Amino acid sequence: MTPKKSIGIVETKYYACKEKLTLENNKKIGPLSIAYETYGELNQKKTNAILVLHALSGDAHAAGFHSDEKNPGWWDALIGPGKAFDTDKYFVICSNVLGGCKGTTGPSSINPDTGNPYALDFPQISIFDMVKCQKLLVDYLGIDKLLSVVGGSMGGMQALAWLRAYPDKISSVIPIATAIRHSPQQIAFNEVGRQAIMSDSNWKSGDYYGGSLPVKGLAVARMFGHITYMSDISMAAKFGRQKKQNQEPFKFTAADFEVEGYLHYHGDNFVKRFDANSYLYITKAMDNFDAGGDKPFEEAIRGVKAKVLVIAFKSDWLYPAYQSKEIVKACKLSGLEASYCEVNSTYGHDAFLIETEQETRLIGHFLNKVFYAAPRLI
Amino acid sequence: MTPKKSIGIVETKYYACKEKLTLENNKKIGPLSIAYETYGELNQKKTNAILVLHALSGDAHAAGFHSDEKNPGWWDALIGPGKAFDTDKYFVICSNVLGGCKGTTGPSSINPDTGNPYALDFPQISIFDMVKCQKLLVDYLGIDKLLSVVGGSMGGMQALAWLRAYPDKISSVIPIATAIRHSPQQIAFNEVGRQAIMSDSNWKSGDYYGGSLPVKGLAVARMFGHITYMSDISMAAKFGRQKKQNQEPFKFTAADFEVEGYLHYHGDNFVKRFDANSYLYITKAMDNFDAGGDKPFEEAIRGVKAKVLVIAFKSDWLYPAYQSKEIVKACKLSGLEASYCEVNSTYGHDAFLIETEQETRLIGHFLNKVFYAAPRLI
Repeated sequence: MTPKKSIGIVETKYYACKEKLTLENNKKIGPLSIAYETYGELNQKKTNAILVLHALSGDAHAAGFHSDEKNPGWWDALIGPGKAFDTDKYFVICSNVLGGCKGTTGPSSINPDTGNPYALDFPQISIFDMVKCQKLLVDYLGIDKLLSVVGGSMGGMQALAWLRAYPDKISSVIPIATAIRHSPQQIAFNEVGRQAIMSDSNWKSGDYYGGSLPVKGLAVARMFGHITYMSDISMAAKFGRQKKQNQEPFKFTAADFEVEGYLHYHGDNFVKRFDANSYLYITKAMDNFDAGGDKPFEEAIRGVKAKVLVIAFKSDWLYPAYQSKEIVKACKLSGLEASYCEVNSTYGHDAFLIETEQETRLIGHFLNKVFYAAPRLI
Repeated sequence: MTPKKSIGIVETKYYACKEKLTLENNKKIGPLSIAYETYGELNQKKTNAILVLHALSGDAHAAGFHSDEKNPGWWDALIGPGKAFDTDKYFVICSNVLGGCKGTTGPSSINPDTGNPYALDFPQISIFDMVKCQKLLVDYLGIDKLLSVVGGSMGGMQALAWLRAYPDKISSVIPIATAIRHSPQQIAFNEVGRQAIMSDSNWKSGDYYGGSLPVKGLAVARMFGHITYMSDISMAAKFGRQKKQNQEPFKFTAADFEVEGYLHYHGDNFVKRFDANSYLYITKAMDNFDAGGDKPFEEAIRGVKAKVLVIAFKSDWLYPAYQSKEIVKACKLSGLEASYCEVNSTYGHDAFLIETEQETRLIGHFLNKVFYAAPRLI
């Protein structure tokens, strides 16, 4: 594939939303800061906007380069001139989720009532609350209807929540490697991560800001998560049973096998960029999520006109393909126009970030159809 | 199935072995205590002895009841009068592994050189060292040749190590839900468990005996392990998305979903009965294990006469069936008589402890043939 151009230098913007957001549990939170980035130009009729939704540990920086960084945004391979989300044609928006720690209000933000970080005084949030927060941003940008909402993993849950909550405000939705709701196994994975964080003596019931951070517990949670993002096959191909060099004498604390060194590296890196309390709030929102809200999903989306493209990956055992098929089935049962594509990847759940060549074609064709099939929109 | 009789009250015995054991890494350890139990009677020619090998968190108490306990040994369904390991016919031995914490010398035992627990001064041990320790016990019991060695998970690794190290001392071997060597994914699972333990501030580089124990870290390791012992299907069937009752107001530290309560319960229970340093040493022995030792396994067992029955379980994703098939393939390539049976279970890795009805038939017939096919043995 010819290397595609980058969108170039971008920067994160902040929408200071003065109004209070009423959460699903009726609690209110505000004023809010919403961190977001945009790529491409909004057309005159404002009909070319696509909202990209990030996963658990993602952020608003989906594409291009920050002036002080060498690595591009997390979905740079898909967003840019001539790419799947073609910025010559579409206006792409990505924002950090409510409860996050990358610029949008979350547990590490200052509570205006106390002048200190919220910590565990931050209210419980839901995936629907994250989406409500995104809706505030989309309104602020003056967009009445989104051409598409798209995301993988937790981003896919948000995409489904948009389909449920604002069906008339979207023309299409692309849920990738995701689920209508978490299985008990998925809840269990998240719970062990939370327990690892809370078992760190630095966690102090969430009141660690300004002191020592629960980095060991958070690193364990991330290492554990990382295993679930890969696959048995991809780990075998990448590491085999290769041992680290210069490991004399043996110590339990040092990496012995290459795969251990890889996990340590990713665990240590993660704690530099992520807040432990955000990890608790966001994973709990995922576990509590049910895309239908108060109704079965199939019933909740009856009569919806948005078109749906569901993508799953064969070796993904964290969000197995059967969960994506459940989304397609519910859509079809409710009369929605839904397509399903299972990509034959060995990369496990991470495939949604890696299999960009196939995603480019699948998403490119789908968006093209949605965009031109409705000439009234152009 | 008609309920079978229990072997009744049993007790753990201890073999105080005065000699020093030379380990695979040439270090020496001793004197040793070896905790073991026996069920049934050794026949006059000493040809009816079966060695049962336990998994990571098991112990010598495989069957019957201790006088002060309500629950039977961990494989009681398979060991007893008329059961798979029929104690009316066979003499069954089970011992706690070297490095363990249930009566056999391990890191929590007193180091005779210092008068204090070994802690991390305990030498690195291997699965082959565990088996060498079992050989001392078998010699002590006056048995020249075992009718069979059998175990699931890490017990199956020990069974393969017997096949490699003492092929002339066994007539058959039954490796269940196990592997010739760990994949990087299996190493990664163990490493995250170890990291959870070592990230507990009470761990103190292993020197925690007599003080506060690293119970939080060990509980996290166990909770994580527990997920890998079950399957997506078995968790869905057992818990669904059922919420715990009386969980007002929400707290991150309290179980919210039933599956979380189950994990907490098993984590909390485990720390009462297991030593964190034993967890480190034993999982590292598993990760380093390669059944061939210094040779490819297939080459290492060439010419071996022992018969092999390999059992795997369809939903086991911790020790997937393909790893059992690799054992069978290596045996067949080396001319051994090997049978393979994949049990159609939904219980995941735990199936080796649960699918006792099918195991009873598979193992019962196999042992019967081995026992009577060699009349010289009777």
